[in-house]
Amino acid sequence: MTEKSILLMQETTKEQLQTLKELAPGYKLIKGWEMDEKEIPLKSVEIIYGWTGQRSEELLTDDKHTLKWVQGKAAGVDFLDLEKLERNKILLTNGSGIHSIPIAESVFGMLLAHARGIQQAVKNQQTKTWDQVNKLMELHGKTILIVGTGKIGVEIGRLAKAFNMKTIGVNRSGRDVDYMDLLIKQPELKEQVKQADIVVNILPHTDQTHYFFNEDIFSQMKEGTLFINVGRGPTVKTDDLIKALDNGKLAFAGLDVFETEPLPENSELWGREDVLITPHITGIAEHFKKRLFAIFEENLKAYLAGEDLPRNLIDYDQQY
Amino acid sequence: MTEKSILLMQETTKEQLQTLKELAPGYKLIKGWEMDEKEIPLKSVEIIYGWTGQRSEELLTDDKHTLKWVQGKAAGVDFLDLEKLERNKILLTNGSGIHSIPIAESVFGMLLAHARGIQQAVKNQQTKTWDQVNKLMELHGKTILIVGTGKIGVEIGRLAKAFNMKTIGVNRSGRDVDYMDLLIKQPELKEQVKQADIVVNILPHTDQTHYFFNEDIFSQMKEGTLFINVGRGPTVKTDDLIKALDNGKLAFAGLDVFETEPLPENSELWGREDVLITPHITGIAEHFKKRLFAIFEENLKAYLAGEDLPRNLIDYDQQY
Repeated sequence: MTEKSILLMQETTKEQLQTLKELAPGYKLIKGWEMDEKEIPLKSVEIIYGWTGQRSEELLTDDKHTLKWVQGKAAGVDFLDLEKLERNKILLTNGSGIHSIPIAESVFGMLLAHARGIQQAVKNQQTKTWDQVNKLMELHGKTILIVGTGKIGVEIGRLAKAFNMKTIGVNRSGRDVDYMDLLIKQPELKEQVKQADIVVNILPHTDQTHYFFNEDIFSQMKEGTLFINVGRGPTVKTDDLIKALDNGKLAFAGLDVFETEPLPENSELWGREDVLITPHITGIAEHFKKRLFAIFEENLKAYLAGEDLPRNLIDYDQQY
Repeated sequence: MTEKSILLMQETTKEQLQTLKELAPGYKLIKGWEMDEKEIPLKSVEIIYGWTGQRSEELLTDDKHTLKWVQGKAAGVDFLDLEKLERNKILLTNGSGIHSIPIAESVFGMLLAHARGIQQAVKNQQTKTWDQVNKLMELHGKTILIVGTGKIGVEIGRLAKAFNMKTIGVNRSGRDVDYMDLLIKQPELKEQVKQADIVVNILPHTDQTHYFFNEDIFSQMKEGTLFINVGRGPTVKTDDLIKALDNGKLAFAGLDVFETEPLPENSELWGREDVLITPHITGIAEHFKKRLFAIFEENLKAYLAGEDLPRNLIDYDQQY
């Protein structure tokens, strides 16, 4: 019988490796992150830690495969072949929760970069220009509408309350979550979105959320709304976003994700003064390795004990 | 007898003018903000609202003058001739408190622009460069040392706690203030400053604070400290600041104020990647006119009733 193995695609420290050896003595540990991708032995892989889809054709052969559980590292799982994973009954857990703090901090960084004239000042500095910048705003007292009330949305809401903002959360059920002054269901968004000075999109990309933000929604917004996208690129129809900037519905868009990434050089977004582009970095966490391993370790203990995975198990029906 | 007058150098709305007429019927209201400076009638001016020192030679003649009270608009008063004002027993009130919210928001805007790679991203956008930026940080868990614990310092401390930071306040007496986990007296700063990941300077410029931040202090900091100056330029010795950036004590400086303003074109600061320059704008408040008038109105009522001015009266000994 071939020895079972755990494939580590996420870099793992010496101490973490030792922990794994003690937890799972029956498994071979493959340091995949430091190997040439083509040379990774896949034959007996049962668990993958930090998979982003490498060599999925070979790992997910429908007839014979040894793979049982994938611990992903991102919050989003849209880049994996979910249909095939589900059909093969592979357990999938993600990195949800690791990213809520850095993403929420980035959202406020983007908002303040606009509101407090910092984006303009950075450009002016390059030409040694000492200039008062455009009309400055305060976040204080503004209304922020947060589309998606998972861990990231709640953390954004928490900080928004600290900035003395009014918070409106949007989710599918309208269920109550912390730090939201008001909760509305997704179908009510169109008529409620005009209440907001700021709209933050954190939607994952699923069949239901494709082009969720389109002209239909943008046209209902208040003039001069600030829009942030730290969800997934294809949840926003870029052409309609540009129209909304042109017709004044949006005064600013802070975008970390795009329909195509990297953002193509010929995209009109690059040159716009009213757009702030970050290259899909808001989720980068300073203590990422430690936090992801903590999720993996807790799940691994349950897995080896034959219990349900307690942290971040994906529901294939919901696609997140 | 000449009619007494109130000189309005801060733009005043129709409704605010009406309020003043009703409050102070015995005074002529001079709309100085819309006049050519040289044409403003000064002869009978008793009160100035929003003065920033215009024609002070004529207003502050030592032998005969009618001026009794100046309501300034900034928090700092270092640009006024305090000695002469004191000698002539002129009451001086400032705009302290108006600026605490916008300045605190700007401080976090600057910190997040560095920590979350936004400063770099704005530059990259101009060359259509999709690039991961330098090592990203989180504010979460960091220690922030706030030098100056007036209204602005407390508001910065309040937001810092919301970002789950450890806060250390520095003031002259070591007296307790809200939102500070630890308070130290100014003389202890040199030995305590190494605890901080971030140092924020909000000191006013007085005889005592001139070049307060110099090599003596910078050399005691932790490697890679982030430094923010939203106080006054001359409280920091620029040459020593540049040395501290060069030798790695500072990893970043966010600067809104400078020894000379506008910052001269030949300043080395302009071209540095590790410096973020804003043109003395952090104090710009969205609701400035309304908030300043509220202070003036409350003080005016007391002034006319012969009572002590309740809001923001300057102590000439302390120079703030």
